[in-house]
Amino acid sequence: MKPSPLAPAAIPALPGIAGVELAAYPCNIRYRDRPDVLLATFAEDTQVAGVFTESKVVAAPVSWCRRALKGRRARALVVNAGNANAFTGKEGLQSVERVISATAKMLGCKPEQVFMASTGVIGEPLPDHKIIEALPTLKWTLNANAWVNAVQAIMTTDTFMKMATKTVRIGTTPVTINGIAKGSGMIAPNMATLLAFVFTDAAIPAAVLQRLLAEANDRSFNSITVDGDTSTNDTLMAFATGKAEHKPVKTTNDVHLRAFKAALQEVLTDLAIQVVKDGEGAQKFVAIEVHGAKSEKAARAIALTIANSPLVKTAIAGEDANWGRIVGAAGRAGEYLVQEKIKVSIGGVLVAKNGARVKGYDEAPVVTHMKGQYIDIRLDLGVGKGNAKVYTCDLTHGYIDINGSYRS
Amino acid sequence: MKPSPLAPAAIPALPGIAGVELAAYPCNIRYRDRPDVLLATFAEDTQVAGVFTESKVVAAPVSWCRRALKGRRARALVVNAGNANAFTGKEGLQSVERVISATAKMLGCKPEQVFMASTGVIGEPLPDHKIIEALPTLKWTLNANAWVNAVQAIMTTDTFMKMATKTVRIGTTPVTINGIAKGSGMIAPNMATLLAFVFTDAAIPAAVLQRLLAEANDRSFNSITVDGDTSTNDTLMAFATGKAEHKPVKTTNDVHLRAFKAALQEVLTDLAIQVVKDGEGAQKFVAIEVHGAKSEKAARAIALTIANSPLVKTAIAGEDANWGRIVGAAGRAGEYLVQEKIKVSIGGVLVAKNGARVKGYDEAPVVTHMKGQYIDIRLDLGVGKGNAKVYTCDLTHGYIDINGSYRS
Repeated sequence: MKPSPLAPAAIPALPGIAGVELAAYPCNIRYRDRPDVLLATFAEDTQVAGVFTESKVVAAPVSWCRRALKGRRARALVVNAGNANAFTGKEGLQSVERVISATAKMLGCKPEQVFMASTGVIGEPLPDHKIIEALPTLKWTLNANAWVNAVQAIMTTDTFMKMATKTVRIGTTPVTINGIAKGSGMIAPNMATLLAFVFTDAAIPAAVLQRLLAEANDRSFNSITVDGDTSTNDTLMAFATGKAEHKPVKTTNDVHLRAFKAALQEVLTDLAIQVVKDGEGAQKFVAIEVHGAKSEKAARAIALTIANSPLVKTAIAGEDANWGRIVGAAGRAGEYLVQEKIKVSIGGVLVAKNGARVKGYDEAPVVTHMKGQYIDIRLDLGVGKGNAKVYTCDLTHGYIDINGSYRS
Repeated sequence: MKPSPLAPAAIPALPGIAGVELAAYPCNIRYRDRPDVLLATFAEDTQVAGVFTESKVVAAPVSWCRRALKGRRARALVVNAGNANAFTGKEGLQSVERVISATAKMLGCKPEQVFMASTGVIGEPLPDHKIIEALPTLKWTLNANAWVNAVQAIMTTDTFMKMATKTVRIGTTPVTINGIAKGSGMIAPNMATLLAFVFTDAAIPAAVLQRLLAEANDRSFNSITVDGDTSTNDTLMAFATGKAEHKPVKTTNDVHLRAFKAALQEVLTDLAIQVVKDGEGAQKFVAIEVHGAKSEKAARAIALTIANSPLVKTAIAGEDANWGRIVGAAGRAGEYLVQEKIKVSIGGVLVAKNGARVKGYDEAPVVTHMKGQYIDIRLDLGVGKGNAKVYTCDLTHGYIDINGSYRS
């Protein structure tokens, strides 16, 4: 698979995080000759938080994680690629339990301290014995610097590795946030076929970590879409080992947390943008801003309706400055708007206002913008103060090629 | 443009309808050398009903029709293809008014008795003078049998003519319903870039006609989707000339109306299915039935979420029996369901039940079904009595080709 034309020029080098060790192994679950299982282990007392798919059809590992999360502590994470273990019934849950129990036994921790995530085909039984048989080898090869192996092990149709890192201070103590993610198709809010894991040496209590994660998720993974299809397996988790010896943090509003919060948002937004840039078949990266909606939620809903419109996405693929499709999509979002107040800009050029195309509209600069790799669309609705920005990609022949033959 | 591989083998011959005359003319609005404007005229006292887009961005002719419909009488309908006259501001409304006023003057009727519909590119001014200049010629060529010309004049990316007819009795008197439609992309409930017009010689009071039309619309045009994009211009109208001399009909529940209601539903469903069969790039026709949902509305919402899923549609294009994507889509419809109760059948073969693939699942007959042109998907949810059936098509390279270059 050729890397997406939107792939970043360089992959960031992720530093080690005190209290985190990683290993990957080729278990041949679906793919051959590539790592497809990740084991991450964490220091004792590592705090954990998680956000999961809002689908009513939920994969077995998600059911497990939701329950285990109540214990608020993590010692290990197991992730497999190639099989989603979704819609696999009781057997699927038993598969998870066997993996969890074998891992907990090997590491000498409670089962509720082991988390699992899966990605891949839905509806086929997970050959969990392959994972369980690999556990000793995985443990043997654990090390603090295996970030690249870790990312490789969780990829499915991804064409490049998605990683981000940020170091900031809590008080005077430096803390690091590393993030890894997979996801390219089936990406839509709440949340995406997306697995994303964030690791930090900061000491953030699980309840605080949970709120920070949920907030940062809204403006990152919940603000991207590739095809509007939400997955049964979407999982975003954060693990805080507490190995950095900073002043204790007790609430989400702690002033010492400001830089950490901003860094967490940056890491998640960075990963989310990378996911869109690897949208299946993507040739162009599209940022859609909606300003002046009734609320932030309304602005996001309108922006996402535009971002999910096949007609808008194919027009962008065809480099056609067809702004009519943009207002058409906005109109069917179901949110309040007044046609006569809408302003539309493409690439910074005002195209329409007062419910019609601007007088003496010169399409030339907009056409030039559409030929570029980065497309900016902005709507000003003039009915409120709600703003939102979402990211998507175009809809091309590549999407059809990839998704018409995914399982083969 | 090659006809869709799903196009019907034969086009039905539409009989004349007493009180209806038709004419078409090439006005060169966007297309060259093909009729692009339709004029239909109706006998005095013709009753009219209409259902329009639910988008918040509404084309100028739709605004006009909604208002004019209050008069409940129609003497003429003007339709143009190639320009949607949507998001064209005050000028767009003035264009409609000029066309309406010229037509009313020519026919000697009130402006509110003239209706207009447009389809095509959004956001460009309508060259209404071209229509107005053609009105005398259109009037000159009016005749009762120009159904084929009428359909041709309203086509955009359609690859075949969509027509249906049905003759039934009200009491002992035969009445005929003729329907014509256009639409291939931007088709989604509420309602589609879809123009559909139904003509009958029955004598149905406008208020009754309105209810019958709205009901039949729910199970036809509101139950189809090509790409989930609703248009600014969607228009379904019915014109009843009253020339058939049957017993007077006063309420929607009149026993004499039974056959008429069924026929109206048949004509609309037939047209709606034809629209899906002409879905841009469609290679396969897909029927999705959802049974046992909480309500008919919930069943339809789930069926439409599946029908709109790009992952489901590309899997069908790729002849991949990827039923996991079907339950994945069902799960994110936002409607109540219990994973463990879901049954999935493809082509009449039970694929999954109790939240997992059936034991000893043999994919072979399902694979054979997927290779066919007609795909049947059925979900049984087991949580209520709501049933719905929707129609869609696959998502292919053809869709991208057509929509990446629509305006050129």
